This record gives sequence, structure tokens and C-alpha cells, in this order.
Amino acid sequence: MSDDLRAVVLLSGGLDSATTLAIARSEGRKVWAMSFAYGQRHAAELACARFQARAQGVVSHQVIDLSDFGRIVADATALVTHSPHDVPDRATGSEDEIPITYVPARNTVFLSYGLALAEAVDATEIWIGANAVDYSGYPDCRPDFLEAFERVANLGTRAGREHPEGAAIRIRAPLVERTKAEIVRTAMELGVDLGRTVSCYAPRGTPSAPLACGTCPSCRIRLAGFAAAGYQDPAAYVATAPSS
Amino acid sequence: MSDDLRAVVLLSGGLDSATTLAIARSEGRKVWAMSFAYGQRHAAELACARFQARAQGVVSHQVIDLSDFGRIVADATALVTHSPHDVPDRATGSEDEIPITYVPARNTVFLSYGLALAEAVDATEIWIGANAVDYSGYPDCRPDFLEAFERVANLGTRAGREHPEGAAIRIRAPLVERTKAEIVRTAMELGVDLGRTVSCYAPRGTPSAPLACGTCPSCRIRLAGFAAAGYQDPAAYVATAPSS
Repeated sequence: MSDDLRAVVLLSGGLDSATTLAIARSEGRKVWAMSFAYGQRHAAELACARFQARAQGVVSHQVIDLSDFGRIVADATALVTHSPHDVPDRATGSEDEIPITYVPARNTVFLSYGLALAEAVDATEIWIGANAVDYSGYPDCRPDFLEAFERVANLGTRAGREHPEGAAIRIRAPLVERTKAEIVRTAMELGVDLGRTVSCYAPRGTPSAPLACGTCPSCRIRLAGFAAAGYQDPAAYVATAPSS
Repeated sequence: MSDDLRAVVLLSGGLDSATTLAIARSEGRKVWAMSFAYGQRHAAELACARFQARAQGVVSHQVIDLSDFGRIVADATALVTHSPHDVPDRATGSEDEIPITYVPARNTVFLSYGLALAEAVDATEIWIGANAVDYSGYPDCRPDFLEAFERVANLGTRAGREHPEGAAIRIRAPLVERTKAEIVRTAMELGVDLGRTVSCYAPRGTPSAPLACGTCPSCRIRLAGFAAAGYQDPAAYVATAPSS
């Protein structure tokens, strides 16, 4: 019965992961949600993750301390607080170029923790909001990376050993090939409170009342997605942000 | 030049990882060593890891706090301090059965951190002391698991994206097909101070002067390996341990 399927959902508190959680819940999954504190600039994310976990009825939600991970990668990414790099003010990623907002091995580390939790609670799925369309510069958001990790998950675990004939553990990335506009539409249809998600790389305001900058690459992609979907973004922006 | 190759070495402080480090150094690698504190019962390991890192001349050695990981997996393994399970007094693993000393997703998590560090310091290799011969019950010590992770490493990173034609990052597991006796012989040839390694799952004594129990599965495998190699184990054991 799919109604009994246990799933781990990686929940950052952004638009994509909140929508991924909503899809998992709409398909009847019992969800163990997992967020990560790795020194990200947008710590307001975690407040949104807690809100979404509660609003969407998960079995449990835990925030994992990855501060040592944040320290290791600090020099190589703009996306943690102790990085020497600034967040760029426009999208720089492409098929050929990986932007400075890429965090080394981040999704590999996140999925590994998801795998440990899945084994611990007998979940057979790990859901992730990875998206290869608008963030094509991130190598660890592509379908072939996710398929490769699924193979690791099945070879490296008890569940995989006990079901050698097939994929005992599945990586579910329902948004991976969707545009941001399609994601916004799905979220609205499923009733996700998108006002309580944070996509901005460097929000102002407070963690519980963040103000998105409206100009970083992530804000631009989000605002363009809402515009293309024909919705107004309910999130709060600083006064100087361009309207969508 | 192989003399310039940068490598991350996962260093637990046990016999296998200390020997793996020695092989990497003997092949001229510049080594960033990495250990993990996840609440393991054998915390004396970390003191040995520090000793080995210093003695073997690594560029840097860091101990990563994985206490949240230890908490997640505590109910599913006997190998962390807050586990409800006891360490078994004999080897229980086999090709068909995974022992209770298996830690869910441990090597996947460790390799993920190794991958993050490798990207951060421009290392192209991650060395791990995984061994499939004596620990055949651990799914995440097998060659096909390690090959699958190498694929993840190359698909999910900047280095992999920039060298799509081949393996820009390699997982090196030089011990994976060796018997424990062969590992002991290699370590002795390379001058590893094996008296400063801990293999015991539940050592007594103090972290800086541990006493191996001599009876847990890991001690039995180690003692049998020394006996088969024709060496005396220089590590300290409690008085009641059987001699090899």
C-alpha cells in the first residue's frame, strides 16, 4: 500500500523542497523530514522548514548540525556565512559553468544523511527538491547524479543487500525536470503556503520574518517563475525589489 | 607527477586506515586526513588517528563532529555509545547476514565528507581503508559500492563536470581485497606503529592508553591476522584476552 510508504524528505525551507514535501504527502507518504544547518547565509530557511514540516503533517522533523561541513567548504562557495565570496547579483550558472553559489558535494552529503535516516526508520524513499532546469550549473542536481546516488544507496545498505534484485531504496526528485513556473503551479494546486518559503540567497529582515532581496540569482529565478505561472509571490521582499 | 597528487585519507585510527594512510604516503601523496566523531564506542580511535596523522606527516588532519549522525543511527547499530544494543562477542557477519555492528550508511556519509574536502582543497583522490574480505557482512565495504560512489563523486562535483570524459576523482581502497594477514604484513613493511592503532569495538583503559578486549569480533579478526602474518600484535590488551 502506497499509503504506508515511509519517506525521508530533505526540506530546506525553500520553494522547491516545500513543494516536494507537498507532493510526497499528496501521494500518501508518511514523512520524516530532515533539514541541515551548515552555516548557510539564508538561515531564515530553517524557520520556514519548521513551519512547512508542521503545516504539512510530517511524522518527525529534525535539523541536523552540519557546521563542520560548512567550515570545510567555506572557501569554495559564496553560500555560507564565513565565506570570503559575495553572493553574485545575477545568475552565473550554465551548462558549461558552475556558479560560485554551488556548495561542494552538498547534495551528496544531504542524501547520505537522508540514507542513514531512511535505514534507521525503515523508509524506502528519499525525496529531494533537486531541479536541473533553472539551476543547470549545479552538477549535483542532474538526473544522472541522482540515479548514481540511488545505486550507491542500494549497494551500500542493509535494505539494498536484502533486496539485491531491485531498487529497495528509491531517490525521488519529482521536480528535477520541471520549470520554476510548473513548480509554482504545482505548489499552488497543492495548497502550499509559499509565503512561508525562502529562496533568497541573502535575505534581510529576521529569521522569522525574512525579506527577500529580489535581485540575487535565486530571487530572479523565483520571481520569473511566479510571473510565468501567472501568480503573485506571497513572500515578503525588500522595498527596492523589482516587482514580478 | 604523482609526487604532487593531493589525497584525502579517511582515518579512523584503526589498523586498516592507518595502513591505508601509509600506502598513500609511500606513493608520494600529499594527504589531508579526516576523522569522524560520531559517538563511537571506541573513541580511543580518535587519539590513535591523531597520533598516526602526526607520525605519518599529513598536511592537515581534521576531526569532524558527526554527533547528529550518531544520534540518527543509534537504534540501528551496536557501535555507538547511546545504542541499546551490546557489542556481540563473536563475529556475526557473513555474505548473507549483516551484523549489528554495521552502522547505517556510515561509509556513504564518510565518503561524502571526503568528497567535500577533496573539492575544497583540489584533491583528486579519496582513500578509504574499506576491506571486503574479513568484513564481508558490511555492504558499504564492497568494491561495487565503492565504484558506485566514485561515479557519484564524478557526476556530482565541479571536478567531475570539468573532466566529463573520465574519472577526475578517484576512490582508492587499496586494502579492499586483502586479507587481514596481508594488511598486517604491509603495515609492518611500511613501518606503521601498529601499537598505536585501535581495532577493538569496546576498549577499556583510557583514550590515550586503551586496552583492547581481545574477544569482540574486531579483536578476533585482528589477532587472527597477526597470527597468520607471523607477528605479535604490539597493541595493549586486557589481561584476560586470549593470546594470539
